[in-house]
Amino acid sequence: MTIKHIGVGPRMSQAVVHGNTAYFAGQVGTAGADIATQTQDCLDAVDRLLAEVGSNKSKLLQVVIWLADMDDFAAMNTVYDGWIDPAAPATRACGEAKLATPDFLVEFIVTAAI
Amino acid sequence: MTIKHIGVGPRMSQAVVHGNTAYFAGQVGTAGADIATQTQDCLDAVDRLLAEVGSNKSKLLQVVIWLADMDDFAAMNTVYDGWIDPAAPATRACGEAKLATPDFLVEFIVTAAI
Amino acid sequence: MTIKHIGVGPRMSQAVVHGNTAYFAGQVGTAGADIATQTQDCLDAVDRLLAEVGSNKSKLLQVVIWLADMDDFAAMNTVYDGWIDPAAPATRACGEAKLATPDFLVEFIVTAAI
Repeated sequence: MTIKHIGVGPRMSQAVVHGNTAYFAGQVGTAGADIATQTQDCLDAVDRLLAEVGSNKSKLLQVVIWLADMDDFAAMNTVYDGWIDPAAPATRACGEAKLATPDFLVEFIVTAAI
Repeated sequence: MTIKHIGVGPRMSQAVVHGNTAYFAGQVGTAGADIATQTQDCLDAVDRLLAEVGSNKSKLLQVVIWLADMDDFAAMNTVYDGWIDPAAPATRACGEAKLATPDFLVEFIVTAAI
Repeated sequence: MTIKHIGVGPRMSQAVVHGNTAYFAGQVGTAGADIATQTQDCLDAVDRLLAEVGSNKSKLLQVVIWLADMDDFAAMNTVYDGWIDPAAPATRACGEAKLATPDFLVEFIVTAAI
């Protein structure tokens, strides 16, 4: 199967497509912004990557969410629930994990079909 | 490749099958129960999802385990070790992550072949 | 698709290969060693597993990194950045998670193409 790298940087690719499956780098939002803004930033970034690999929200396979503080669970969910395709929601898991710096409140690790 | 959603809820699917690979939502147990019970609950849920997608324990690919408190590592392992197919165990990783509420002690994130 | 287990132990396989995709168990380094050493240990273990499944660094798909303490982020990155294939870096996500014992500082969870 073919392997295609997208958004290649010095440390990581933003996406790697293997055959019909796309793996995205963990997406974060604007450092220091509130949880709703950072969540929307992340999901906007996911939408851009989905478009770039020729996919869309209805083809999400797995979404792993790291929250720096589980107290932000409800606020994150409000944005997430408004974003997903209700006819084809991904599988999901959400756990608490501190991120690269305290200014990052949430990170989304996404796998999608093409 | 085909994409099939199983257990579609307002926020997530319990499983998404992409071709011959199944991704499961993070499975949790009975809130407030002890670690052995919650672990068994999770693995029972995994067994049910495996059956639903037409797979079984011998076809597990990856199991990621989040423990709310690593002090529960040994007690979780006792249940896990008794559950796996010893001829075909999945790859595994286990780290500490607080979960949606303090009543949840463990979560299993599973990928399986069909 | 075929499923092949590599490094089968009583609790987990070190790798499971499904068709053209390989899932590796979370790799840890020498307990008690410093972060640079443990990171290199992990990446050496990944290299060995890649060779064993007939793959190599240019075919990495996703690398999830758990750091027991995010203060080790920079020191881990120095080793990681020197290891990756700059022409074909994997996607990556790094979050803080305590590991099996306090002696383990970092764990790498890797998915690769064959």
